[in-house]
Amino acid sequence: MGGSRRAVYVLAGIWVIIWILLPSWAGAQDSENISAQTRGCLGCHQTVTPGIVSDWKNSRMAKITPAAASEKPARQRRVSFDSVPENLGGTVVGCAECHNLHPDTHDDTFSHGGTDVHTVVTPEDCATCHPVERQQFSQNLMAEAYGNLMDNSLYEALITAASGPMKFTGTKLTQKAPDAETNADACLFCHGTKLKVEKIEERDTAMGPMEMPEISGWPNQGVGRINPDGSKGSCAACHTRHRFSIKTARKPDTCSQCHKGPDVPAYKVYKVSKHGNIYSAMKDSEEWDFSAVPWTVGRDMEAPTCAACHVSLLDSPGGRVLAERTHRMNDRLGWRIFGLPYAHAHPESADTSIIRNKNGLPLPTALDGTPAEKFLISEKTRVERTRTMQQVCLGCHSSSWVSGHFRRMEHTIDSTNAQTRTATEILQKAWDAGLESGPAAGGRPFDETLERMWVESWLFYANSTRFASAMGGADYGVFENGRWHLTRNTREMMELLELRQKTENR
Amino acid sequence: MGGSRRAVYVLAGIWVIIWILLPSWAGAQDSENISAQTRGCLGCHQTVTPGIVSDWKNSRMAKITPAAASEKPARQRRVSFDSVPENLGGTVVGCAECHNLHPDTHDDTFSHGGTDVHTVVTPEDCATCHPVERQQFSQNLMAEAYGNLMDNSLYEALITAASGPMKFTGTKLTQKAPDAETNADACLFCHGTKLKVEKIEERDTAMGPMEMPEISGWPNQGVGRINPDGSKGSCAACHTRHRFSIKTARKPDTCSQCHKGPDVPAYKVYKVSKHGNIYSAMKDSEEWDFSAVPWTVGRDMEAPTCAACHVSLLDSPGGRVLAERTHRMNDRLGWRIFGLPYAHAHPESADTSIIRNKNGLPLPTALDGTPAEKFLISEKTRVERTRTMQQVCLGCHSSSWVSGHFRRMEHTIDSTNAQTRTATEILQKAWDAGLESGPAAGGRPFDETLERMWVESWLFYANSTRFASAMGGADYGVFENGRWHLTRNTREMMELLELRQKTENR
Amino acid sequence: MGGSRRAVYVLAGIWVIIWILLPSWAGAQDSENISAQTRGCLGCHQTVTPGIVSDWKNSRMAKITPAAASEKPARQRRVSFDSVPENLGGTVVGCAECHNLHPDTHDDTFSHGGTDVHTVVTPEDCATCHPVERQQFSQNLMAEAYGNLMDNSLYEALITAASGPMKFTGTKLTQKAPDAETNADACLFCHGTKLKVEKIEERDTAMGPMEMPEISGWPNQGVGRINPDGSKGSCAACHTRHRFSIKTARKPDTCSQCHKGPDVPAYKVYKVSKHGNIYSAMKDSEEWDFSAVPWTVGRDMEAPTCAACHVSLLDSPGGRVLAERTHRMNDRLGWRIFGLPYAHAHPESADTSIIRNKNGLPLPTALDGTPAEKFLISEKTRVERTRTMQQVCLGCHSSSWVSGHFRRMEHTIDSTNAQTRTATEILQKAWDAGLESGPAAGGRPFDETLERMWVESWLFYANSTRFASAMGGADYGVFENGRWHLTRNTREMMELLELRQKTENR
Repeated sequence: MGGSRRAVYVLAGIWVIIWILLPSWAGAQDSENISAQTRGCLGCHQTVTPGIVSDWKNSRMAKITPAAASEKPARQRRVSFDSVPENLGGTVVGCAECHNLHPDTHDDTFSHGGTDVHTVVTPEDCATCHPVERQQFSQNLMAEAYGNLMDNSLYEALITAASGPMKFTGTKLTQKAPDAETNADACLFCHGTKLKVEKIEERDTAMGPMEMPEISGWPNQGVGRINPDGSKGSCAACHTRHRFSIKTARKPDTCSQCHKGPDVPAYKVYKVSKHGNIYSAMKDSEEWDFSAVPWTVGRDMEAPTCAACHVSLLDSPGGRVLAERTHRMNDRLGWRIFGLPYAHAHPESADTSIIRNKNGLPLPTALDGTPAEKFLISEKTRVERTRTMQQVCLGCHSSSWVSGHFRRMEHTIDSTNAQTRTATEILQKAWDAGLESGPAAGGRPFDETLERMWVESWLFYANSTRFASAMGGADYGVFENGRWHLTRNTREMMELLELRQKTENR
Repeated sequence: MGGSRRAVYVLAGIWVIIWILLPSWAGAQDSENISAQTRGCLGCHQTVTPGIVSDWKNSRMAKITPAAASEKPARQRRVSFDSVPENLGGTVVGCAECHNLHPDTHDDTFSHGGTDVHTVVTPEDCATCHPVERQQFSQNLMAEAYGNLMDNSLYEALITAASGPMKFTGTKLTQKAPDAETNADACLFCHGTKLKVEKIEERDTAMGPMEMPEISGWPNQGVGRINPDGSKGSCAACHTRHRFSIKTARKPDTCSQCHKGPDVPAYKVYKVSKHGNIYSAMKDSEEWDFSAVPWTVGRDMEAPTCAACHVSLLDSPGGRVLAERTHRMNDRLGWRIFGLPYAHAHPESADTSIIRNKNGLPLPTALDGTPAEKFLISEKTRVERTRTMQQVCLGCHSSSWVSGHFRRMEHTIDSTNAQTRTATEILQKAWDAGLESGPAAGGRPFDETLERMWVESWLFYANSTRFASAMGGADYGVFENGRWHLTRNTREMMELLELRQKTENR
Repeated sequence: MGGSRRAVYVLAGIWVIIWILLPSWAGAQDSENISAQTRGCLGCHQTVTPGIVSDWKNSRMAKITPAAASEKPARQRRVSFDSVPENLGGTVVGCAECHNLHPDTHDDTFSHGGTDVHTVVTPEDCATCHPVERQQFSQNLMAEAYGNLMDNSLYEALITAASGPMKFTGTKLTQKAPDAETNADACLFCHGTKLKVEKIEERDTAMGPMEMPEISGWPNQGVGRINPDGSKGSCAACHTRHRFSIKTARKPDTCSQCHKGPDVPAYKVYKVSKHGNIYSAMKDSEEWDFSAVPWTVGRDMEAPTCAACHVSLLDSPGGRVLAERTHRMNDRLGWRIFGLPYAHAHPESADTSIIRNKNGLPLPTALDGTPAEKFLISEKTRVERTRTMQQVCLGCHSSSWVSGHFRRMEHTIDSTNAQTRTATEILQKAWDAGLESGPAAGGRPFDETLERMWVESWLFYANSTRFASAMGGADYGVFENGRWHLTRNTREMMELLELRQKTENR
């Protein structure tokens, strides 16, 4: 028998197996498990928006009913309701199960194909099956990301400094606050926009003219989005539509969208860290399983991703819990290494717009570094949270490794805070001399040149240095926006101050 | 039967299957389908340059004859000739089929192993089997990348400012134009060099001394390369040698070589966008197929790559065409968000060296922002091209999503153009005051300090902000070379102008 | 028979196969091949640090005894001893085989579970099975990375400039040398720390209180680490613990930890190079094999990684050796493109702290560019090493390609060195005028503003331009920290010099 004929036989055999398996795989979404209402949606949408539909068909939600999902052993469960939600027991979770939910509370509800549909699916909708995660997330700093930025007068001033349009009058430069569309394209892209139904408009679609709401601030999937039902956040920020795969949420690439800039270089630092090296080099090995629940250290993965340290339910191969799942990521964070302007113990409340430092400014630390203690977690809580995080580290590292690592990181928090203090003192001198206009003089503290240099000293360089320390980011603590830039910038602030003193005093 | 013995049996079975299949896989390139001439090449080159040969053996070209390729249904075809090229019907496309083609038109043809061979395979050679793609590409901005840069006196001045060697005389700094070798290593690395046969030289090779052409500008695979047969471009820029895999061309990494710097941060922005997040997290899933033709949204991939939006033939799973394949990428581009110095409607002709703005400068916009309208596409064409692109978006997004996205992007084009205007006005003031030497005074507009800051304001920061807006790049529109840097830079320009006014006027 | 029932049968069949195979896969580490001592370790550690244990279980070391490893044909061998080390023949290499080795020479040896264990496994320990690699590495620049930095007074001054804490006195800025913990978190993170046992302390562990050494400088896996047994280096820098996979070491991501910053942008440049494009796009193809020894060009990979060009044993598919394995990476490096401050022929000795330039400064080149020739390799050796590297290139590229590439790269070395010369002359002028305090005046040459700009001109911009040239990094030679920044920075140095001359002389 010749090689090519044998190959044909074997290939034929393989095709037979595929043909046998195919119906059970591809058939899921055609089964009686799909609700009549969702079938109605699919009728048009598999033609009109085939990408979404295919994406959903590949999702777990399209394959398993909430009732079936709830029958799993507790620790393997992805749903967190106490009892199966009414009307959701027998069908998989399709278009209608999310987009037709709670029509009365959704300002964006509109009549579409004979049903009341809304465009924006919100945490309140997802809470039908995932109430525990929704509840945790609502206490997560991220859920308040819109208000934490927009309801803080100082941060609003930072937004204006960053994104406000500048005009040149011929002799001087003026700057206004940015408009809503610019904010939606800039800071609020990650923080979340405020979605507001402006009007119902007739729109030309592939199926002819249709009435649909025009929603200002849309599209957006920011973590702190203000939704048309009044809820806050977007689960799709991490659980990317319309597959909602736990695999996506667990991969660091997903976090990169909002955590890659010089202000929060978490992803960049992770990628050059040993954890990130291992992830990049080994993640496609057959041993790695990004979908297993619980997620087992050493069996499902060999190095942590962002989710492993901050969110996921982690087990040891023997079944010991290393960390409980939490969507209130604060649970594992003692320090907030993101300085404002100093790194500090984590805020007590997810809503940070309520914080006032000792000088009455809405900042978690005073300009001299004093933390706004009554708005921050206690020393005891900070140590407890650090211990919670360390349980993850200890899954792979010895206690001497872990204690050495955290000792060094806390030293770096102290030393970078000291550098921020030095930069602040130089700026204060400029403010005192009337060379730039600070808060005491009623000025915005972020828009003039020395002020902007000061902002970069803590927002970019001290920050980058701390992220590098926390994850082992090497050059992000030295020549890649690290200490070298921190000291260079401080020196340049000093020189500019001196130059100003000379040139202004003449 | 013990576990290890059973394992041996099963493993043996697997090996038998592999052994059966192997000949049919590995055997392709040994078949009678390889031309006698290519066999001649392989005789030495599988020893001398084994990497290339293996690469080619793994390619589609080594496995399928043009005749067989043309028998595919029209929409699955990768070749675009009307009838099978003479002499190419019965053999696969090997060394000789490309490197021995058109010997008379190739200045780099030399006698080698008894045949007339040329080093540089050109679009004209590839057009033998891919005439439609070659024709489209010739009308693509990229095909003219060499002349668009080198035949524009202003851009030549930019090249000199960027790459020209500087000397310090002891009191001042002088700068000359860079030499050809520096250009080949810098701008022309991507834009393409001009290849010129300098002489035939004897070279020591693994097979003894041989006569070969010395080609200045070689090696290079820039998109606008001027070839020894007079043609323009290099298909290998994207269809990487010698595998020429559609998989490579469709992956965004390939585009990163020339689209990653601060001037064109497309790849960086893509990677942090939701599309890029999904790509990074999910691309290795079994569902993704980077080789399917047509490329089916939702079946072969779950998120677009660069190629999906700009080049590929895209279908819906139902077989509806979302976008026709085009190698004239302009077809889907209404705006050119890459500002020169302002973002503008796309140029009409691929050759942009012919453009003159209202002041006679070879720029698509005047320094006050007025577009050079008669060289740019009409409003009508711009809207049509945007609609073509939107058909791709609508494969996965609702019409309200798409209209909101494009409304926001066009707002960002306007607002960043306004910032460029402000920066230009400050520079104009400096030019008017004789503080720096602009075009009106016969100076190069890119080489002095304020001028360089101005260049960065549009080339880096406005640009980055627009790329971020177009793809959802978050911090690339704010703190990562975005609006923060744009406003900071504008302010620093203003301060430097003021300082100069003070210090020069004393 | 319905589709779902058939699926059940087939799935059942697949499970049977898995069940048959499982014991032989999972059983390895439970076999009699594990030493009694290592079994003792595992007894607790598979509970206490399950991640490490799983990682090791997946490693080659856990599966193959040194005796079995030595029976491979010479060129496929991963061990390099002449005869199997005593006591290691019959068991796999587990915890005790490394951590209990050489207890007498290890200052960090402590009594733990009844045995003498040390925390830090060193090259001297690894040399038991890999003596050739250890010997080569000891002659590699990297092995001396600690002393090359810390025993060089000039580089110490650079460390202080970069990382030293700054204080503002109210009128001026002072800077001290950084403390040890800061250095460990900054430069020494990659260069390696000096590990020192400070004391034995009682520690709370999951198994109750235990006595363990407190080691200053720990954790660290820098390439030049000074170990508690006096040896230098850390094999785990590249051969990541506790899997020690050759796959990890061969992937470029591993190198990124220390080779990604603006001073050594090797990884960033690689990723946008054609080699990197191919790697990113194709590495998951079934053809790629990152574990094969020898590593065969065109069969196991289609484009080189860092390891392929600098370290690995490379063969052609026909079995011809393209490059011998070397852990003395200098073997393939003629030039050191990392300028200090000029690019130069590679240093002769791995210990560069002995180098003195013609002015007696510990730099491989004088400030006017003259190389410290007697400490650098000869022209002949430089050419020979380049030829060794070119053998790798020639595996896939024609001789005209290779000669053109290297000609261009050497031109770029010359032209960037000339730019460094220009920048140095400007700085020298400032030093001569007493505007900043250089070495002649007893000052640190890296800490003042013009000095820092000068550092960036060679350390960031000239360097980036050369890395881009060496690997085809396109924009890293122009707008991404390349020539544009080099010329901009030089001009700004000139302007600052002029401004200082004006303002200081008043």
